[in-house]
Formats: sequence, C-alpha cells, structure tokens
Amino acid sequence: MADHEAVWRTLSAVRTARPLVHNITNYVVMNSSANALLALGASPAMVHSVEEVEEFADLAHALVVNIGTLSPAWVAAMKLAVARAVARGKPWVLDPVGAGATRYRSAVAGDLAARRPAVVRGNASEILSLARASAEATRGVDSTQAAEAALDAARAFARLTGAVVAVTGAVDYVTDGDRVAACHNGHLLMTRVTGMGCTATALIGACLAVEPDPLAATLHALALLGLAGELAAERAAGPGTLQVHLNDALAGLDRETIGRRVRLQ
Amino acid sequence: MADHEAVWRTLSAVRTARPLVHNITNYVVMNSSANALLALGASPAMVHSVEEVEEFADLAHALVVNIGTLSPAWVAAMKLAVARAVARGKPWVLDPVGAGATRYRSAVAGDLAARRPAVVRGNASEILSLARASAEATRGVDSTQAAEAALDAARAFARLTGAVVAVTGAVDYVTDGDRVAACHNGHLLMTRVTGMGCTATALIGACLAVEPDPLAATLHALALLGLAGELAAERAAGPGTLQVHLNDALAGLDRETIGRRVRLQ
Amino acid sequence: MADHEAVWRTLSAVRTARPLVHNITNYVVMNSSANALLALGASPAMVHSVEEVEEFADLAHALVVNIGTLSPAWVAAMKLAVARAVARGKPWVLDPVGAGATRYRSAVAGDLAARRPAVVRGNASEILSLARASAEATRGVDSTQAAEAALDAARAFARLTGAVVAVTGAVDYVTDGDRVAACHNGHLLMTRVTGMGCTATALIGACLAVEPDPLAATLHALALLGLAGELAAERAAGPGTLQVHLNDALAGLDRETIGRRVRLQ
Repeated sequence: MADHEAVWRTLSAVRTARPLVHNITNYVVMNSSANALLALGASPAMVHSVEEVEEFADLAHALVVNIGTLSPAWVAAMKLAVARAVARGKPWVLDPVGAGATRYRSAVAGDLAARRPAVVRGNASEILSLARASAEATRGVDSTQAAEAALDAARAFARLTGAVVAVTGAVDYVTDGDRVAACHNGHLLMTRVTGMGCTATALIGACLAVEPDPLAATLHALALLGLAGELAAERAAGPGTLQVHLNDALAGLDRETIGRRVRLQ
Repeated sequence: MADHEAVWRTLSAVRTARPLVHNITNYVVMNSSANALLALGASPAMVHSVEEVEEFADLAHALVVNIGTLSPAWVAAMKLAVARAVARGKPWVLDPVGAGATRYRSAVAGDLAARRPAVVRGNASEILSLARASAEATRGVDSTQAAEAALDAARAFARLTGAVVAVTGAVDYVTDGDRVAACHNGHLLMTRVTGMGCTATALIGACLAVEPDPLAATLHALALLGLAGELAAERAAGPGTLQVHLNDALAGLDRETIGRRVRLQ
Repeated sequence: MADHEAVWRTLSAVRTARPLVHNITNYVVMNSSANALLALGASPAMVHSVEEVEEFADLAHALVVNIGTLSPAWVAAMKLAVARAVARGKPWVLDPVGAGATRYRSAVAGDLAARRPAVVRGNASEILSLARASAEATRGVDSTQAAEAALDAARAFARLTGAVVAVTGAVDYVTDGDRVAACHNGHLLMTRVTGMGCTATALIGACLAVEPDPLAATLHALALLGLAGELAAERAAGPGTLQVHLNDALAGLDRETIGRRVRLQ
C-alpha cells in the first residue's frame, strides 16, 4: 500500500539525513531515548541548560520536550528552546508525561501545549487531562478515559492548539482535528518497559525533521516503533530482552518487513 | 514451607494491585529501578520537584528515597515527600547510599533515618555508618564491618528508629530490632551490575505497598530479587546479559520456582 | 608483543586494585559508564554536589569529568573536584562533550582543559574546537576536521596544556605532544550506541588510577574497550545486543585474547 511506502520513505530519509534531534527530556529515559534515536538512524543530543538551549535549538533539526522529571529550571529551558524552535520554523513535539497527576505538572503541560508544538503525544489519561483543562474540549468528555473519549478530546484539542495530537495505547490514534489515522502495531510487553511512550515521542521528533506533514511523521514514527516492538517480542523472553531486541529491530527495519507488517488505517 | 507461600502471596499482591511506587532516587538507577518495578508488576514513578512531591506522595502507595546522587534541592524534596507520606500513613523506605563516605551524605542519611521510615536498606558499611552516628548503637560496634558487627548495629539502629533495617550482602539480614531473618538467595555476578542495592530498595517499596508487616515485605522483596538474580545468572555470560535476564526473570517468577528455590531462615 | 603484555598488566591491575573512580558525568551515560567500570573491574561512584565533591575526591583514585549535560551548578562542582584532585596529585580526565557546539560548552571545556587534566579525550570535532580556541594551536588547523588535522591539533594542544590528548574515531590516536600512538581496535556498530565515547573516558579514568604513564593508561583503556566492542559485535544482532555483550566482553577479557587481537602502533 501507499501508506507502507510512505513509512519506508520516512525511515529512509531519517537514515540518510541523520537529523540532529534536540531532546530536553526526563532523567529516566535519556539513555534509552538516545539509543532508540541512534537505532532509527538519527543523531540525538540531550541539552537542557538555559545557558545553551537556544543556541543548540538553532543547530538541531527538531526539538523534543518531555516533562517526565520536570523542575522549574528545566521548564525555563524548555520555554527558551521552544521559542527559538518556533521562531526558526523548526518542528517540536511535546510529551506531557503525567499531565493530570499534579497541579504543577498539569499547569506546565498546558502552558507548553499552547506554544505551538507540531505534535503532542500522550496516553489517553494525559491527553484527556490536557483537553479538559482547555475550555473547548471540556464539554462532552466523560471521566472513563476510554480510547473513544480520548480521541474526541484529542480532536478538539488539536483544533484548539493547531497541533497534531497522538493518543497512544493498544491502538495509536493520530489526529490533526480533522483527519484521524490509527496504527495497530505494537505489543503488550512494551508496556512493561519504562519509557516506551517517551521513546515514541523521541522518534516522532526524528520523523518530524524529515517529513513535513506532522500527521504523517507521527503516524510513521508510531508504526516503526510498534513494528520494532512486535519483532522484538518474537525474540524476547520478557521485558529485559525486549528492550535490547527492540533497538536491534529498529536498526534493522527494512522495506519488505514494513510493507508486510505495518498496519495503518 | 509457609515462608515460600508468603513470598508468593506478596508477589501476587503486587501483580494484582500494581501499586504506584513514588521514587526520589539517584540518576544512575532511575531507568533500571523503573524497569525492575515494572518487571515485578508495580507501577513506578520518578518525581522529585518540591513543586509536586507532596501532591504526588498523596497519589502513591509507597515512597522510595535514595540518596545516591543527592544535592540540596533534592534533599528538600525528599523531606517534603517523607513528611507527607508519614502524615498519610503510607510506608517509605530509605536507601542511605554511601553513608559514611562524606560528612554531607552521612548527615543527610542520619536526618532522613530519623523521619520514621518503615525500612532502611543498606550494605554493611552504610548501616554501620548510620548506627555509629547514633548514640545507642555506637557502643560495641567495631570497625571491621563484618556482617555480624553490622547485624548487631542494625538491630540497635532498628530499636532506636523503629524502622526495619536490612543489611544486604552475600547473605541479606533483616531485623526489626527483635526478630532477625536472613535470605540466602542471590548471585555474586549481581555485584558487577550497578544499582542492584538500589533495585532491592525499590522492590521493597513495592512490597511495602501490599504487605503490612515491613519485615515480611523487606524479606520477600530481597528473596524475589535474589532468586531472579540466580535465575538470570544461569543464562548470563557476564554482567551485561545478567541485567537483561534479571528483568525477564522478575517478570516470570512463579509459585513453583519460589517454593523450590527461595532460601530464608 | 610488549604492548599486549602492558595492556594485560593494566587490566590486571584494575581488577586487583578495584580503584574508586569518581565520575562527574552526564545524565545520559551515568548508568552505562558505571556498568562499564564495574565490568572492567573498577569501583565507580557518581558524586556531583558541591557539598561533597572535594571530600569525595580525597577518597577516589581518579576523577572523570564529562560535560555532556552541563549546567552552572555542575560546572562549579567540577572545578572544586578538579582542584582537589590536582592538589592531591590524583589524575583526572576530561571529556569535552560537544565542545564547539555552543559558546557556553566551548567556554567550559576550554576552562577545564586549562586545569591540568592528565588526559583529554574527544572526537576529532571536539579536539579541534578546543585546539582552535587556544592561540598556539590555531595556526595551521583547517576546517576539514580530518583525522590528520585533528592529530596535529591534538599534538599542539597536548604541548600547550601538558595533558595527554586522545582523538577517538575509526582509529584512536593518543599523543602527549611528542609521542603519538594509535589503536586500531573497535567496531563501526559501537557508533550506534549512545555514550561509547563517554565510556572510553570513564575507562581511561580507571586505567589512570593504576598506570602512572597517562599515555599508556589511555592507550590501554581504548584498546580494551575497542577489543570488547569487536568481541561484542561478533555476537550482536544490532546496537541493542551490542551494548549488553560489550559489558560481558569487558568482564571476560583475558590475556590470550588481548595478545592475539589488540592492534596498537
């Protein structure tokens, strides 16, 4: 299908361009995100100091902002880097980790989401929390946090912010407020490895650097990670081996496997 | 034996309840602790900012405080989170990493140990350092740091603080100042992987969330980790593969293996 | 050859002495550096707070300073630790990660390089950036960043600072400004794992603790890591399994394999 070819083209473009992906991310996943970006073919950098984030944002091809282990100094750096990326027309992606868990976290996530991210990726709970905090999306969203409710909220939130919004889970949904696409790749064992959502966000950053349509870039990144997770699960005996094989699988993805196994709709 | 069944019950309770374990821990082990908690069946979160630790402590079922890479801002957050956990009656466990190595570290460890942890887990040197710094335990503790001396100090320190104290090593000892229990599981190769002690502390946090007796919770966590380490060592060719197989083994532990191989006394 | 025997002697000395290596390093590689040091046979510690770095530098046998994720508070701690190590006659090694990428990073790298490191290790781009910023080395260094240009710059920079300078890449070059040695071990797949350069620097720290000649210590550390990477690549299916097998290989290196496969000149 055309979709499969587009996924392959995005991966090939990452491998060829080796885009520099600037990450301001959480302590838990810095190593695993860097390794996943390298395995995909991108060039990762973790730079968070206010003294240098703006200058580094100028060098990078995309910016990833993840609030997993936030604190005020880091939030200040995130805002500086985001402002510079937006001013330079470079895409950035927001991972609102734990939005809804504490007021501080929700406030920071909401503030950042208003700063013109190309993409926001979260789980159903995080996206619902962000959407509820905004006026338009509040209505009609119930508290069950079902995928459908999250998808409605995601669509409303996408319209409100202008960002593509991804709700990841057993099925990943991606919307720009108008179009909705879904990816059915992935494996349950991935939920037993820390930072898989953060890895998805990092890979979206890499794909944004080479694919101008943020909805396509997001969908392709999720398909590549989900497929690598499936391939890894076939070789893994548990969550420890899964993570190791996942990076091998990302590095080895080829056109034939993508064509045969990516499941988008 | 009854003990084996109790270990299995604790593991089953973690897998069923999936307790939210709040970690304020060191940079080195954030990823590996999160993965071990996920492999056991718990739900880990790393949250350290003073802006949100209290609110997050309200959500969590247990708190893990580890001073491995401490600095003043983190210590402030540790104290806030501990106070909230104690006020809410939630158990917390202290890992006094490197107590005795520097005055700052010893002072912070001693201060935290006085704030009513349910459990303190360290190696012989750390527990001896903590115990020596307290008046009651100072007498009679020599400087050889043998397991026996550490055990005496641990017992005195447990009586002084009201905490269960675990001294881990080739044999793990757990005491509430009165009772003493020992776990003989584990493998020498585990000492070649960074953060195994920190992982033990994190798993104790998960077990504290489901088992009301802190001595039992601690002993069960150490048995589960030690057994997983043994199983991993059987498949490992060195410390790299050991860590990977350890998480697989934690996720796969079953009643039969626990009944056959856990060695408590 | 005599060189092979010297490499083996350094490894044996690390395994026997288990030197305490004090790391002030970046968030991305704290876990992987600690594991590589343990696999080699050393005893790693990550300690960065200004409240304790001086006291800890007194305990340690060598100091590793890596600016990968620098910020002002960490730089202050680096300077305190370096001053103490130098005052006590203990060797320290600098990893100027990303020197040249931002002004802040270049300034910090240049400042630290002037504080009498025993060794500076970087890639060609980082060493060229450091060398260009110094008066003597500026002349004659063009912008192509070829290994030859980097080597000339490294030699000049070594003479200027008194440090041994290592430029690592497909071939690793080590110079004290006069002598130049090269190591041909290593594998291309190592470039797909994050923090391999940082790991090299950490292992140099361990070897500096037992081998008084910093040029030999550096060359031996690079040979041991390169050889372990080659052995790991033979068993790996990609970058994920490479990292795991690399630590196994480091822990298992023996005299016979070193004698047969280390390639120095």
